[in-house]
Order: sequence, then C-alpha cells, then structure tokens
Amino acid sequence: MPLMKSWVASANSPTTDFPLNNLPYGVFSVAGGPRHLGVAIGDMVLDVTALTSSHLPFMAQALSDPRGWNGVMEAGPELWARFRKVITSLLSETYEDVGALRDQLHPICDVDLHLPFKVSEYTDFYAGKHHAVNVGTMFRGPENALPPSWLHIPIGYNGRASSVVLSGTDITRPWGQLKGADDTMPRFAPSERFDIELELGAIVGTPSQGPISVDQADANIFGYVLLNDWSARDIQAWEYQPLGPFQSKATATTISPWIVTKAALEPFRCATPNREVELLPHLRDTSPMLYDIDLTVALAPSGGEVQTIARTNYNEMYYSAAQQLVHHTTSGCPMRVGDLLGSGTISGAEKDARGSLLELSWGGNEPITLDDGQVRSFLHDGDRVVLRGVARGSGFRVGFGECSGTLVPAADPM
Amino acid sequence: MPLMKSWVASANSPTTDFPLNNLPYGVFSVAGGPRHLGVAIGDMVLDVTALTSSHLPFMAQALSDPRGWNGVMEAGPELWARFRKVITSLLSETYEDVGALRDQLHPICDVDLHLPFKVSEYTDFYAGKHHAVNVGTMFRGPENALPPSWLHIPIGYNGRASSVVLSGTDITRPWGQLKGADDTMPRFAPSERFDIELELGAIVGTPSQGPISVDQADANIFGYVLLNDWSARDIQAWEYQPLGPFQSKATATTISPWIVTKAALEPFRCATPNREVELLPHLRDTSPMLYDIDLTVALAPSGGEVQTIARTNYNEMYYSAAQQLVHHTTSGCPMRVGDLLGSGTISGAEKDARGSLLELSWGGNEPITLDDGQVRSFLHDGDRVVLRGVARGSGFRVGFGECSGTLVPAADPM
Repeated sequence: MPLMKSWVASANSPTTDFPLNNLPYGVFSVAGGPRHLGVAIGDMVLDVTALTSSHLPFMAQALSDPRGWNGVMEAGPELWARFRKVITSLLSETYEDVGALRDQLHPICDVDLHLPFKVSEYTDFYAGKHHAVNVGTMFRGPENALPPSWLHIPIGYNGRASSVVLSGTDITRPWGQLKGADDTMPRFAPSERFDIELELGAIVGTPSQGPISVDQADANIFGYVLLNDWSARDIQAWEYQPLGPFQSKATATTISPWIVTKAALEPFRCATPNREVELLPHLRDTSPMLYDIDLTVALAPSGGEVQTIARTNYNEMYYSAAQQLVHHTTSGCPMRVGDLLGSGTISGAEKDARGSLLELSWGGNEPITLDDGQVRSFLHDGDRVVLRGVARGSGFRVGFGECSGTLVPAADPM
Repeated sequence: MPLMKSWVASANSPTTDFPLNNLPYGVFSVAGGPRHLGVAIGDMVLDVTALTSSHLPFMAQALSDPRGWNGVMEAGPELWARFRKVITSLLSETYEDVGALRDQLHPICDVDLHLPFKVSEYTDFYAGKHHAVNVGTMFRGPENALPPSWLHIPIGYNGRASSVVLSGTDITRPWGQLKGADDTMPRFAPSERFDIELELGAIVGTPSQGPISVDQADANIFGYVLLNDWSARDIQAWEYQPLGPFQSKATATTISPWIVTKAALEPFRCATPNREVELLPHLRDTSPMLYDIDLTVALAPSGGEVQTIARTNYNEMYYSAAQQLVHHTTSGCPMRVGDLLGSGTISGAEKDARGSLLELSWGGNEPITLDDGQVRSFLHDGDRVVLRGVARGSGFRVGFGECSGTLVPAADPM
C-alpha cells in the first residue's frame, strides 16, 4: 500500500508517524478547555468532537463521552468502519470543502493530551519467548527456563488499571519490602532495581463472556498502544511466590497517547513463529495475527542525550493479542470495552534486542554503558525512558508516537 | 452493647441479621423499577433514595448514584457518619413520625437485590495462616508450607472485577487447560476440581495514592461483605507458575448483597494473633483490627438439604484488611473508591474449620461425606453453596445475610 495523500501537508512527510494511512485516536484539550476526541494527522490533531453536528451526527453520544474513546468502541465495529471512512475522506487530498475543517485542526504541540480511553481492567502477559527464556534462565537456570505451561498458554496475570498513566507522566521510584539473599529480615526502602518493560498494549473494543474463538478475539480488538510496564525487580523477587507480581508492577504503567487502530495496522500483518509444540485447537492461529512493528527503547540520563538502548520488533512475540484474549476468556471471564492487554516484554534474540534492563544488564551482572560513559543496570533517578514503534510502508510509516516517562526520586513515606 | 430497639418489629428479633445495630447498605428495585439505595432493617428494606428530599437533602447526588453506594463513599467519612446517625434516628423505637417512613419500607423478600456498589478493582489476598499452611503443605510439603515472605507481607494478587457477581447468581462450571501429572499434553475441558473459598471482602471507601499508615488504612475502609472466590484448582495448578492465578479465579466471585459497615462492626473488634516474626513498622497493628465474626460454609446438593460443612471465624486471619490495604499502597498503587479486597480463605485450626473444599477434602484424598451419604471432594453440578457470617452481641446479632451460588454445568464452548 502506498502513502495516502492528505491536504494536511505535514501528513505527507515520509517521516511522520501520522499519515492519512494511520489516523490514530486520542483525547486532547486546548488551554484547559474541555476534553475532546481527536484524530492525529501529520503534526496536527483534528477535533472530531467539534465535527459532531456538521459531519458526524450519527455518533453524537460517542463523541462526547467523558471517558474518551470508550463510547466509540461500544458503538461497535460497523460504526468504527463508518467513522474511519468519513475521517479518511475528510482528510484526503481530494476533499474540497476544507475551510471549515481547518478551524478544527490544532498543532499537536499546542494541545494537552490525556489518556485516550478509560482503562476498564489491565492484564499483562508473558508471551514473548526470548524474554521468558532470558528471565527464566536468570532465575531458574537454562534447563528450567520456560515454565511447563509456557508453550501451551499465553501466561498472564491481572495488573492494576488505576496505575495506568499517560506518556509524559513522571514516575516516582516506589517503596517496598526488599530482602537480599543474605539478609535475615526484609527492610522497607525505595526500590533499588527499578526497570522498564517494552510492550504493546491491545485494547478490547467489543465485550464478551465465555470462551471465544481466535477469529472472534481478533475482531474484538479495537487498536494498540505502546506500553511501558515499569517494574521493581527487587520488590518482585521477594513478593512473587506463589501468587505472582503485585506491588512490583503497581507503581505505574505508561501508555502512548494515540490508539493506532487495527484497521491502520492491517497492511503490516505477519505470522507468529513456528510452534515448538502444537497449540490446542482453541488457541491455533487461523491467519497472520502479529504485526511487523519496529520497536525501540531509548534512555536519556538526567541532563543528557536520548540514546537508543534496544531495538526489536513486535513480530518476535510467540502469542498474538488475539490468542491472549482467547485465553483470557476461557474460564468465562467477562471482558469489557476498554480492557487493556499488555503483550509482555518484547525481546529479540540478540543482546541489544532485549526489552528490559533486567535482560540488557543480565540481572545487573553486565551493566550497559551509555554514550557518555555512564553505566546502567537499572534506572537512576532522573532517567527518562522513551519507547517508540513504527510499521514501515512504502514511502510512509504508521507510528505510535512516543511513550515516555521520567523516574523521579522516592517520596518520604507516610 | 445491647440491642438497639426499632419500631420495625422484625428488627428486634434476636435472630435477625439486621437489627438497628447493623443497618447494612444494599441496592434494590421493585417490580423491574429503578434501582434505589436501601438500608436493611429486620426483614424490611428502607428506600433511602426515596427519602432524599424529605430527610436526606444533604446527600441528594449520592443517593441517586446509578453505581450504588459509590457516591456515598465518595462523599467521605463525615457524611458516612451523618447519614448513619439520621437513619438510626429514623428507625429507632423512639421516632414518632413513622407514617411517611412506612411507605418506604419494603419486605426484602419482595424486592430484587443488585450489586451494592460498582467494584473498581478486585484484589484477593492469601492472609489466613491455617489456609496458607494447609495449601502449602499439600503442594510443597510441611517443611516448605509457608512461602518465605508470608510472615512479612500479606501476599495478594489482582483479581478480575468484571467477574464479581451478586449472591444468587448461578455459576457456570468453567472450561480451561487441564493437565494431569501423568499426561504428556494438556487438554481443554471443563474443570473437574471446582472449589469455593470462604472470605470476607473489605470495601475501600476513601481513595489514596502512596504508602498510607495502618490507622489511615483502617479509616479508609467503608465496610465488609461476604465473598466466595470460586476457584478451579486444576486450571490453577497448570497455570499459576510463575505469575499466579489467572483464569482459575476469573469465572466468578460472589459477594453478599448487603454492605455491613465498619461502624456496625466496631463493638466486635479483636486483635490479630501473636506474630511469629515481628512485622516491619509500617505494617504493625496499632489497635485491634480484626472482628469476631462467626462464619459458616453450607452446601446443598441438587434437590437435597442445606448442611453446614465448615465453621470458622474471621478472627483466625493473620493480617487485617487494614494491613492488606497498607501493603497494597506501598508501591504508590492508586487505590480508588469501590476497590474490593478479599481477605483470603478463612480457615481455622480444626479440620471442620477449613474454608475450601481443597482443604476439607485434603486435595481430594479425604472426601467429605454429606448427611445423605453423598461424598464431595470438589463441587458437583447442581450444588448450592451458602456462606453466612454473624457477629454476636448481647441479645442481638450483626449479620451479613447470605452469600450463595449454584454451580450449573459447563456450557458448550465457542
């Protein structure tokens, strides 16, 4: 598919994340005004809430939903397609009546962005094999790296929706119970092994109750965001047996401000890897269910330059978001519009393709060295982390924008 | 404290769960009409939404909250106390103008009850020591029964709020991946080891962000409900390493319809047990933080009589709900009004004081025998389970009503 041209000039640049092919969905406000739904185009945002009566009267209620895009999602896939068709037409270079539309275009750099939807519940998976093998090798040795069920189910756990924050939000280093291997007692102190996890988040757009098929699950996904699942490894090590991560993952999870729709990602579909053990029928792929999305992790020390510390691709996942959603429904778990499913850390086979500092520094034993000579095993106060994701078309790219956050020092407790 | 007498005659019976001393909060509707907030008194419910303009104008918005009691909780502890004082006065035997109130009293047996509040997020703990030792002994042997962190933190995991249902809702036996110890491959089939967990659920009534003290946590709790955390033990065994229970706990969690407020439970406070290892300062008890509440689990086979299969007490917990809430906040996890914290399974020291079939039947190796000669290791289709809880005063009781559900056969999947 070639670049689709828009009358918004910046959308035709080969380096914009937001050409007409993309049209990601966000929530914005101008100068403290009300929150409106917006669609990014080049370096502008189109105020679609303001177009309700003139161009989108068929979705008036959804476009004024105070939660964000939840109302649009609830309106169902037929409306998703109709809305997308209208916006694509309005922003196409062949559209003639652009006068009124120009008034509803705002430079993205001039608006405040907000969470694009209300997160109903947040689930995080462990579905990237390189990550699972790396972490398992560090914790249990290479012979027992993968848990027994790993090749049969996308292992997941429930996270904390209240902790999901927008890109740009400062992250406060958490307190927690820490216990070194040689300590006799734990102590309550700020985490010393605070980490990131590079993930993609899938957003459930259609509710369900009871087991659903892979095809139905794929159809139920509305879109994707970048996701950084901040993780306190020392808190995690002490708490995670036998019921899994809890406070180590509850400080914050950052998501990017723009929902890249499944429709925009269609041209970039690719297959999951070959199965080492055949999946049970209900989880088998029926078509290409992953996407070819280049992903990077960059780190900027306080006052320093941003530099890329890892490069990988979403096609490294072992399980697709559709397969994760199928597994999530098997026991009858009700899924709701706005449920957010984290892919799990996305790591590639190479050392510089690892999506967490835990893996990049091999548990702190092999710290990475930054361009300015500083070393990192885990995050230092003041470090800013930036995730990016881009699917590459011919002469254009479908990008996610930036998913960033700066670690600030632990607060005094209580 | 003696019985507080009401002009509602049934509230003065020594066997009612709902004397004037209790005044639990629910949501009800009459003949398909709108949902109103109600307060139980004897065998009646007082429609407090209908009393808004006449008696409760200071909380008009909260009393018409479509979510239930969330709005009242959000209004804060001062309003909680003021509301309770007004209702106590209106229903006291010394109140003179009962004419208008009689019109707003409905027999509980004539109304439909609904979830009393919108559950924001649901967390389940593992904070009863007898339960943890029992389960740990079965899974890891008596020497390794308690996980290393168990005596230092109330271990918890995030559950699934969307799966919380009201007492009386049928529970459908879940499907899931099952794998026997001798099987080479898992299979997808209905759970064969479907179980219950007797718990008390604490409801967060005041939001927080960042570590809070035990006293603050205690103040932030609004009230309690009975909670049955239905659990598929075979799904759990296959999935729970290393990230904890997921689909095994996502089929349903049943709660009782009436929120018993912290205020009503005040006279029944009692201390947590002696600590085997001193807790870190932020988790230490500052006053009696448990409650003396007798709890029972009863089972009725399809077409058979209800019989009690376990008796225990909430005072068996090692960690209080306040301590659980403190731990929940340590990493900066934002807590919201309507968060539900399951205590974890409440088991006593004796064999017939165990709050799950897993423990009562010792992993299925010692099935229990019912009065009619039937045996149970885990639930059979058609079994109805009823939890009850009662704090006993002098000549009165503060009860929770019933928390029940019937297991119905697995549905055909997909």
